[in-house]
Amino acid sequence: MSYRHHVPAKGSGRPHQELLYDADVPTPTHAERARTLVAQLGTGTLCTMSREPAGYPYGSFVTFGLDDGAPVFLISVLAEHTKNLNGDPRCSLLIAEPGDGDPLARGRVTLIGTAASLSRGEDESAREAFLAVHPKAAYYVDFKDFSFWRMPVEAVRYIGGYGRMSWVERSDWTTAQPDPLVPFAAGILHHMNEDHAETMVLYCRTFSKATDTSAARMTCVDRYGFEMSATTGMGPRPIRLAFSQAVSTAKAVRAELVELARKARTQRTSS
Amino acid sequence: MSYRHHVPAKGSGRPHQELLYDADVPTPTHAERARTLVAQLGTGTLCTMSREPAGYPYGSFVTFGLDDGAPVFLISVLAEHTKNLNGDPRCSLLIAEPGDGDPLARGRVTLIGTAASLSRGEDESAREAFLAVHPKAAYYVDFKDFSFWRMPVEAVRYIGGYGRMSWVERSDWTTAQPDPLVPFAAGILHHMNEDHAETMVLYCRTFSKATDTSAARMTCVDRYGFEMSATTGMGPRPIRLAFSQAVSTAKAVRAELVELARKARTQRTSS
Repeated sequence: MSYRHHVPAKGSGRPHQELLYDADVPTPTHAERARTLVAQLGTGTLCTMSREPAGYPYGSFVTFGLDDGAPVFLISVLAEHTKNLNGDPRCSLLIAEPGDGDPLARGRVTLIGTAASLSRGEDESAREAFLAVHPKAAYYVDFKDFSFWRMPVEAVRYIGGYGRMSWVERSDWTTAQPDPLVPFAAGILHHMNEDHAETMVLYCRTFSKATDTSAARMTCVDRYGFEMSATTGMGPRPIRLAFSQAVSTAKAVRAELVELARKARTQRTSS
Repeated sequence: MSYRHHVPAKGSGRPHQELLYDADVPTPTHAERARTLVAQLGTGTLCTMSREPAGYPYGSFVTFGLDDGAPVFLISVLAEHTKNLNGDPRCSLLIAEPGDGDPLARGRVTLIGTAASLSRGEDESAREAFLAVHPKAAYYVDFKDFSFWRMPVEAVRYIGGYGRMSWVERSDWTTAQPDPLVPFAAGILHHMNEDHAETMVLYCRTFSKATDTSAARMTCVDRYGFEMSATTGMGPRPIRLAFSQAVSTAKAVRAELVELARKARTQRTSS
């Protein structure tokens, strides 16, 4: 079953500006971006088929965990969404990145599937996954009117912001891993922008077409590389550079960035 | 059409503690609380009936405005939710209060209705209501693939946190007004807690059963009154006191609080 609609062809869209870096630089896939976003959040909107009023899609706020790619919920039999799921288990979960500024520029993921309630005894992995995200739920996890539900994912819609959206293949969703650098990214950006602004100018001048870069600021880092906003004669432009291999620790990022600086200096000296 | 299910009978629920203030003190209705919450936010989850994969309730992130109690959306004909609405216009909008701490203690509202697209010429009030909340949408408001949709509300589910939930009557939703003190509440709380802690102890000792109050902190203020957390011999306890009439300005709140302090002093002197 495939839901690949509206995946923009590579390089299509509205190319207002020439890309100043290699368009084939490794970047996270939409499946990886979606898993990364969902892994950072524990609340979303559960969409169920309303029983009363009947026939309306019904949105409710839920807490969730992720058990091997499947959302798991701990919900009360008294809640509206639980009654709805007992009537029709087809549902979806919308997870939206919080934040300030333009709301439509932020990421969101819709997971679509069919939920099933788990009896005591078959809810071990769901319980573990849920409590890992919501440890305080331990105090009501064994209340008689609460039980775990698990929603195996059948389709995934990812919207990363303007013009970055697609239906993600179910198998891609299932196998994708959240970015391992999430816990370190803010610290890496802070360090690079505070202490290594000149090195980033060197990166941009040496490894991209933005040879007139006068300033550069790191805007994101992920397992495959990092992005900078370069101040150029044509204004601010994005530059993405790749690591030599996928990395998973802050230490490995540091080694990559040091090596990149060494290469840049060598290249400029020899040219 | 009525959706009053699970409205807890007054004073029911799980009364672990005796209430230390008058249970009949005027408080905002659930309709007013819901309108107040929705008026402060401009994003939510739109739940529509998915066309592909067919038959699943589908959640998507949307920006909205409120036009005479009805959510209005500015959406592209290319978007999944628009295709879904064109297939079945029944939908709901979940609006959830952001914040930190226990997510299930925060407020949320589900508005249920049937959306209709508005043609140019009949979208004036929707346009005005939407742009009041999202002024930056002005730059794409006239794009050919975008149009306004309006969702007259047929049913309202309000959840204010643990044990505070009900189906709100449609007519109550429509006539309720958001709390006029929202823009001033944070300032009023800050001022009272910084400069008038002793006066609040006096309020608690004089106008509630918490006669041994040793400290008090204002936790919220609305058009009908205010709430404090009183430190008592039995631990922290909530105390709500009413204003003499509904108020709508910071100045009127100040006059009420000054008069309340005067009354308290008079009462204690004469007793």
